[in-house]
Amino acid sequence: MAVHTFEPTRFHPTIGSHEPVLRIRDGDTVVTWCVDAGGHDREFKSVTPGGNPQTGPFYVEGAEPGDTLAVHFDRMWPNRTVGFTGKLVAPWVIDPGFVSYLPYERNAGQRPSPPTEPHVDLWDLDLEKGSIRLHTPRLGLEALQELKIDPMLGCFGVAPPRGQAISCATSGQYGGNMDYRGFTQGVTVYFPVFVPGALLHVGDGHAIQGDGEIVGTGVEISFDVQFTVQLLKGKKSNWPRGENADSIFAAGNARPLDQCVQHATTELMLWLEQDYGLDYRASSILFGQCIRYDLGNIFDPAYTMVARIEKRYLPPKRS
Amino acid sequence: MAVHTFEPTRFHPTIGSHEPVLRIRDGDTVVTWCVDAGGHDREFKSVTPGGNPQTGPFYVEGAEPGDTLAVHFDRMWPNRTVGFTGKLVAPWVIDPGFVSYLPYERNAGQRPSPPTEPHVDLWDLDLEKGSIRLHTPRLGLEALQELKIDPMLGCFGVAPPRGQAISCATSGQYGGNMDYRGFTQGVTVYFPVFVPGALLHVGDGHAIQGDGEIVGTGVEISFDVQFTVQLLKGKKSNWPRGENADSIFAAGNARPLDQCVQHATTELMLWLEQDYGLDYRASSILFGQCIRYDLGNIFDPAYTMVARIEKRYLPPKRS
Amino acid sequence: MAVHTFEPTRFHPTIGSHEPVLRIRDGDTVVTWCVDAGGHDREFKSVTPGGNPQTGPFYVEGAEPGDTLAVHFDRMWPNRTVGFTGKLVAPWVIDPGFVSYLPYERNAGQRPSPPTEPHVDLWDLDLEKGSIRLHTPRLGLEALQELKIDPMLGCFGVAPPRGQAISCATSGQYGGNMDYRGFTQGVTVYFPVFVPGALLHVGDGHAIQGDGEIVGTGVEISFDVQFTVQLLKGKKSNWPRGENADSIFAAGNARPLDQCVQHATTELMLWLEQDYGLDYRASSILFGQCIRYDLGNIFDPAYTMVARIEKRYLPPKRS
Amino acid sequence: MAVHTFEPTRFHPTIGSHEPVLRIRDGDTVVTWCVDAGGHDREFKSVTPGGNPQTGPFYVEGAEPGDTLAVHFDRMWPNRTVGFTGKLVAPWVIDPGFVSYLPYERNAGQRPSPPTEPHVDLWDLDLEKGSIRLHTPRLGLEALQELKIDPMLGCFGVAPPRGQAISCATSGQYGGNMDYRGFTQGVTVYFPVFVPGALLHVGDGHAIQGDGEIVGTGVEISFDVQFTVQLLKGKKSNWPRGENADSIFAAGNARPLDQCVQHATTELMLWLEQDYGLDYRASSILFGQCIRYDLGNIFDPAYTMVARIEKRYLPPKRS
Repeated sequence: MAVHTFEPTRFHPTIGSHEPVLRIRDGDTVVTWCVDAGGHDREFKSVTPGGNPQTGPFYVEGAEPGDTLAVHFDRMWPNRTVGFTGKLVAPWVIDPGFVSYLPYERNAGQRPSPPTEPHVDLWDLDLEKGSIRLHTPRLGLEALQELKIDPMLGCFGVAPPRGQAISCATSGQYGGNMDYRGFTQGVTVYFPVFVPGALLHVGDGHAIQGDGEIVGTGVEISFDVQFTVQLLKGKKSNWPRGENADSIFAAGNARPLDQCVQHATTELMLWLEQDYGLDYRASSILFGQCIRYDLGNIFDPAYTMVARIEKRYLPPKRS
Repeated sequence: MAVHTFEPTRFHPTIGSHEPVLRIRDGDTVVTWCVDAGGHDREFKSVTPGGNPQTGPFYVEGAEPGDTLAVHFDRMWPNRTVGFTGKLVAPWVIDPGFVSYLPYERNAGQRPSPPTEPHVDLWDLDLEKGSIRLHTPRLGLEALQELKIDPMLGCFGVAPPRGQAISCATSGQYGGNMDYRGFTQGVTVYFPVFVPGALLHVGDGHAIQGDGEIVGTGVEISFDVQFTVQLLKGKKSNWPRGENADSIFAAGNARPLDQCVQHATTELMLWLEQDYGLDYRASSILFGQCIRYDLGNIFDPAYTMVARIEKRYLPPKRS
Repeated sequence: MAVHTFEPTRFHPTIGSHEPVLRIRDGDTVVTWCVDAGGHDREFKSVTPGGNPQTGPFYVEGAEPGDTLAVHFDRMWPNRTVGFTGKLVAPWVIDPGFVSYLPYERNAGQRPSPPTEPHVDLWDLDLEKGSIRLHTPRLGLEALQELKIDPMLGCFGVAPPRGQAISCATSGQYGGNMDYRGFTQGVTVYFPVFVPGALLHVGDGHAIQGDGEIVGTGVEISFDVQFTVQLLKGKKSNWPRGENADSIFAAGNARPLDQCVQHATTELMLWLEQDYGLDYRASSILFGQCIRYDLGNIFDPAYTMVARIEKRYLPPKRS
Repeated sequence: MAVHTFEPTRFHPTIGSHEPVLRIRDGDTVVTWCVDAGGHDREFKSVTPGGNPQTGPFYVEGAEPGDTLAVHFDRMWPNRTVGFTGKLVAPWVIDPGFVSYLPYERNAGQRPSPPTEPHVDLWDLDLEKGSIRLHTPRLGLEALQELKIDPMLGCFGVAPPRGQAISCATSGQYGGNMDYRGFTQGVTVYFPVFVPGALLHVGDGHAIQGDGEIVGTGVEISFDVQFTVQLLKGKKSNWPRGENADSIFAAGNARPLDQCVQHATTELMLWLEQDYGLDYRASSILFGQCIRYDLGNIFDPAYTMVARIEKRYLPPKRS
C-alpha cells in the first residue's frame, strides 16, 4: 500500500497501450498532477499539445483482461487560479434552423486553442474560498461573479483492447472523455480491464462544468490528483461504473444519447444482479420508479449518459 | 377570476381540436379530476378506454395562435390508494444484445392493459402520510415498502395546429405525453397557443416515477387536479416551458434524445433573450457552466429532455 | 369492379378519420386528381392552404382493423407544366458546423410557400416527351436542362387509429409523407387498416425527386391519379408495404434513420414468413447478402427508409 | 511508376501509425493479398487473430497532412473458393420488441469466430464463372444456389491523426470498416492524409454483401488485391471520397445514420465546389432532384452512408 509521488514529463493525447510511466500494486496510492485540456501546466505554460493530454499510463501489477480496476479519487483539485471556457454552445446542441443566428466563426464546435482571449472566456479562481468568477464581468451575468467550484475530471480511463490508441476527444467502454460532473473527488470509478496492467490514464480537469459540456469545455484548468487503486480479480464489468456516498452508477458512451442510455441501463442491471442479487424483474421494478439519468457530455464524438440509483434503495451488497 | 368545478364525463385518447367541455377566462381556476392512464377512475372502475385519456379540453377565451398560455398547477394529487406499474424495462432502453435475457412476453414495451395482476405490479398508497409501497413485497426490494410519493402529470397539453388530433402516447411542441418528473404541483407550464381557445387537456397522473419512465409507466393512478390559467397575449413560444420556485426550464420532445436536447436548449436560449435580455453569447457562457438537463421519458414515440437553469443565475426578469 | 371518377373540391392537411368523399368496393377503380404540396391545382391556382393537402378520404366497404388494403396505382402523372422546388439543402442534412456557410433565410428548412420566385426554383415540364428542365438556366447546371421525369406520390395513406388526425408533414405506420421515389405508377402499396373503411388519402405529386427529399421538395406539381383497391381480409401488416415488377419492399417511418431501418427490416421479415414461408434464419441468410435499402425522406419530422428484396431471390408465394 | 509485389506476413487489427511494410511513390502499383475478416488465408488457414486484419501499412513518399491520397483499385478478387457469413440479422437492425423472436445465442451481433459451421453459414465460389452458392441448400432459398459474386473491400483506410490506432471493427474520416458495396474493383478512393506517408491499410474482402452488412458479414473471404496510388498534394478533403465510371460519391461514418448523411452530403457539396465550381445554391438544386444515397453498413460501431451523384449531371471538372 505504497504512496507514489509521480511527476509527469510526457503527456498522451490518446488513451492506449503506451509505455507505462509507473508500476503500482493493488492498494497503492499515486499523487500526481495533470495539465489542462490545452496542455498548460500550473503556471499556465504550454508544455504539450492540446487535446486532453493524459498523465500516465500507470501499470497495475496483476491486472488482466476480465478483471475490474477500482480507482478511488482521494483528491482532485485545481492547482492554479486561471481557467478558460469555450464561447458558444456547439451547433449540434441547438436546432439546426437556429444555427444561423449564433455568431460562429470557422471551425465552430472545435475545442478552443490557444486558450487566450478573445478565443475563450477566462475565469478566475479563489482556491481558498473554492469560488470562481468570470474574468470579464458581463451585463446580465452578475451571478457568474461568485460561483462555487465543483472540480471533476473530464477524461480518464484504461487502455482499450486490440492495441488501440483512441483520441482523448472521445470515449468508450474503457472510459475516456466522458465529461460527467459526477466524477469528483471521493468517487470510486470501476473500469473493465482490457490489457495487462490496465494502464490507467488521467487528465482534463474542470473547475466547474454544466451538464453536457455544451460549449465544449468546463472551466479548463490544471489539477493536482491523488488516487488509490484496488484490483478486483475476476470481476466482470463492461462499462465504467462509479460509486459515491449516496449512489452507484454506470456510464454509457456512444451516439446518439439513446444508445448511451441503453449501455448505462444494461450495465447497472448487470451490476445489481452481480453484487446485489436482484434479477431483471426486480431491477425493472426498482428502476421504473427510482432510477436517475444524468447527462455527461453531448459535445464529444461519443456522448455520455449515466444511469444512477441511490444506495438507500438497494439491499445489502453480497460479499 | 372564477373558480370552476368541472366533473368530466368523457375523455379523449388524443390531444386535438375537440369540442370544449368548458369555457374559461384569463385568471380562472378549474378544479377537476382525471382518470388513470388505463381509463380507471377513483374507484378503480374502468370508465373509458386506456391510453392516457384526457380531461378537457378547456377553452380559454381570447387565446389565439401566437399567444402563450400559462397553466399554474395549484394542486395535483392521487385520489385513490391503488396504482400500477409496468413489469419490465422496455426493450429499446437496454442493449439490443441484452434483450434476449429479459423475460418479455409478446407485445413487449406496450403499456399494460388491463392493469391487473399479473399484467402489472400493484402499489398501495397512504395519502395521509404521502407514502407508497409495492403491493407484493419482493426479496431485495425492501426499500420499496416505504417510498415518498411525488405526484406529477405525465400527459397534458394544448391542441396542435392544422386540425391535428395526436395520440396521447406521444408528445410534441404542444405538450402531450412528456412524462417528466418536474411537472408537479406548484409548477407553471407555458404552452404556445396553436388554435383559438388553446384547448387545454390534462391527464395521466403518476404517484411517483423514475427518470425516463422506462417501464412504460410511473405508478399510474387517478388524480384530483386544480389549475389556474393566465393568458400571455402576443407572447411567442415554441415548446413547453416551465417554472417552479427554483428554476425555469424548457422541454424538447422528439427522437433521438439528441434532438430533444436541441429543441430544449434552443427554447431556453430564446426565453433568456426574450425575458431576461441575455444575448446568445451571454446565454452560452451561462449554460456552459450552469445548465442542467433532465430526462423526461425515453419510452414513448417521442422522447423528452428538459433544459433547466436555476433562477439564482439569472438577471431580473424584464417587465 | 366499378370505375369512379371523382372530382375533389375539398382537401385535408391531415390524414385522419375525416368524412369520406366516396365509398368504394373491393376491386373498384378511382380516377381523380390532387393539388400540389402548396395547394395549387392544374391551373397553378391556389385552391386550398398548403402542406400536402390530400384528396379523399375514400371509404372501402368492408375494410376493418386487422385487414390490409392493397392500392394499385394504375397511373400517376403531372397534369400541368410548371413545378417548383426548395432552394437549399435543409440545415439538418448537413454538418452542424457547416450550416453557417449556407445562405439560409429565416425559417430555414420550412417548405416554401408561396411557391413563386424568388422563394422557390421553378421547373418546366414537357409532358409529351416526359422531360423537365430548370426554368432559369444556371451556369454549371446545364444537365438540368434535360432530365426525365419520374413521377411519384410523396404523401398518401390510410387513417391512423384512435381518432387521430396527423399532419401531412409527417408519416407513420399508416403511411403519410414518406417521399420515397419508389412510389411510382405501377406499384401496389399495402396498408394496415386501422379504422372501418380504411379511409384512403392521396396527394403530394412529385415530377422527379432526389433521394431524401433534402431540399424539402421534389418538383412539386399537381397530379392526375388513378388507383384500384383490393381488400385483403384478415391479412395482418404493420407498416406500408410495396410491390413492383421486380421487388417487394417495406417502409419504416421514424427518427433517427436507424429506427426506420429497424421497422422496415422487421416488416419485410414478417412478410417473408407470412407469404413466402421463410423463417427468420432463412430470411437472415437471404437479407445478409441480397437486401437493398433505399432512403425515402430525411427532411420530414419522421424520416423514411425502405427495405427491399428482389423477387428473383424469393420462393413462390404461398397461396 | 514501379509495380511492387508484396507478400504480407503480419496483419494489424487496427488502422494506425504502425511500422510501414513498404515505401512506395506517387504512381506506384502494389500487388498483394489480404486474409479474410477472421484471419484466414487462401488455404483457409488461420494465420492471424480475427477482426478484419489489415495488410500494410504502405508508406507513400511525400504524403503529408493536408494532402489527399487517391487509391485506384485495379483489381480485387477472391483467391479461394470458400467463404462464410453470419447467421442472423443483428438485434439492433430489427425492432427492439421483435428481438425476442429470433433465436440469438449469447453474444448476439458479434462477428462469428471461428468461421466454421455451425457458427456460420458456408458458401462455395466458382471463381471462373464468378458465381457463388450457399453450401448447405435450404428450402425456400433455392435462388441462393446461383448468385453472381460482386467482390468488394469492407475495411481499408489511412492512419488517423494524433497517433491513434483504431479497431478495424469501426470507421471514421480515415476510412476503416465501412462495408460499402460500392468499393469494388475499378473504383478510385480518395482519403484525407493525416500522417506523413498516409499509411494505407487494406483488408476484409467480401465476395458479395447485402446493403447494411446486417448479419455482420458479407461472404467473408481472402482476396488478391492490386492498387495504384496517386498523391494529390495540397488537396483538401475531410471524408473518404470515391469515383467510378458513372458516379462520384462521399462516405460518412458515424452514428446514427442521420449523422452519416450529414457528413456525406457536406463532403460531396465541398467536392463539387472545389472541383466543379458549383456553389452551395447550385449543388442544392442539383442534389434536391438528383442525389442518391447508398447504405454502407448498419452493423459496425460507426455506420456508413454514401452520398452519390452521377457524373452525367456534372459540369466539366476544373483543371
